[in-house]
Amino acid sequence: MSAATHPGKLLGVGVGPGDPELMTLKAARALAEADVIAHFAKAGNASHSRKIAAAHVRAGVIELPLLYPVTTELPKCSTGYRDTLGGFYDEAAAKIAAHLEAGCVVAVICEGDPMFYGSYMHLHARLAPRFQTEIVAGVTGMSGCWSAAGMPIAQGDDVFTVLPATLPEEELVRRLADASAAVVMKLGRHLPKLRRALAASGRLPRALYVERGTMADAKMIPLGAKPDDDAPYFAMVLVPGWEERP
Amino acid sequence: MSAATHPGKLLGVGVGPGDPELMTLKAARALAEADVIAHFAKAGNASHSRKIAAAHVRAGVIELPLLYPVTTELPKCSTGYRDTLGGFYDEAAAKIAAHLEAGCVVAVICEGDPMFYGSYMHLHARLAPRFQTEIVAGVTGMSGCWSAAGMPIAQGDDVFTVLPATLPEEELVRRLADASAAVVMKLGRHLPKLRRALAASGRLPRALYVERGTMADAKMIPLGAKPDDDAPYFAMVLVPGWEERP
Repeated sequence: MSAATHPGKLLGVGVGPGDPELMTLKAARALAEADVIAHFAKAGNASHSRKIAAAHVRAGVIELPLLYPVTTELPKCSTGYRDTLGGFYDEAAAKIAAHLEAGCVVAVICEGDPMFYGSYMHLHARLAPRFQTEIVAGVTGMSGCWSAAGMPIAQGDDVFTVLPATLPEEELVRRLADASAAVVMKLGRHLPKLRRALAASGRLPRALYVERGTMADAKMIPLGAKPDDDAPYFAMVLVPGWEERP
Repeated sequence: MSAATHPGKLLGVGVGPGDPELMTLKAARALAEADVIAHFAKAGNASHSRKIAAAHVRAGVIELPLLYPVTTELPKCSTGYRDTLGGFYDEAAAKIAAHLEAGCVVAVICEGDPMFYGSYMHLHARLAPRFQTEIVAGVTGMSGCWSAAGMPIAQGDDVFTVLPATLPEEELVRRLADASAAVVMKLGRHLPKLRRALAASGRLPRALYVERGTMADAKMIPLGAKPDDDAPYFAMVLVPGWEERP
């Protein structure tokens, strides 16, 4: 493609935690105005963000699915994983760059908030030095979950922290004991370890397990009452602060 | 007021960080459908949340301003402050309860996300045991800020933390050094102390100062380059993680 006189614009568009109504007015407008809509998905799976945004994808828009070559098949620390993913993001960025050079507005739709643990960041880092960009903030998955649970999460001078359940057990214990309020993400096979860490840090009685928080089939249960250790990767545990409430 | 056959419903509605377009579709619908719209403000000041939501407040809706008797005039640790605020929230809850008992839908609009450091939580704690409630999650102020700054804040296995600048200096140093990514809120007169804590923890070179993040008159500057220590209470400092980006 040859370069247009006016190069396009890259939009990182958060579509929120799952309920399509938790998209912002700005995200809806961005999708209505975009020439190209790009979305991440695992090869063979439907894109979650595409599903959330479905009602706002106009007929005839160019769609650009970005299909992960691997997700959990290779160990994350391996060079193979990093190289494969790095190459994938390079290729995805190149595809988007071609549209931007042709003068198009490209919206990359992202679950939750684009700059908060989102895949969009990998494209942004590659393209922001060369093209105009704009981020449309979104409601995060964790906000969606504590709102659906009706759970005040943090107040006043609370220290709030987000932890991946992948951390070593001792570190989870230390960090859970050290925060007023916490959200633990990426549960999957780490739930038994997290349960022990919550017990050791004294936070188990307040911990709520949440799966598909803003969906019709949401599952919420105090972790202490959950009879098994089955958890999908995207489930989370919420530990509310605000212990001195008036 | 006598009790209605069908009591009403309390909605905690997040209207996002400031840009009216960063309201969710659900918040817009909630405001269109509410019988009563309540909002917090400091006596004598316009309500920020009311201003953000202005386009969605329908003509003829009952408005219920909830005016703080004090905010920063009394020391926060004083019994006077706690008692005055506690009494204020009791009274505000009673006013809302009267509308709920009459069968009305009451939407309390909140800047950012209602359950994340929001005043709505004080009403929720008082009313949720007696009435049906629903929370409409919102884009937080901090998401609005890092998005406006185009700053990827956290990725992968990053530990993310939110700290009030009111913490003692040594505790700020320790917590800033211990997190991959941090947001420090409630700056005000604490900025000189925070600046020292960021320097001591090695995080000053990455720290960005943000004031009125999603407004037209936003001010963003690397904290190391900010020539003075003037900061309003609602300014924040962002310290991004994602240091091992591929």
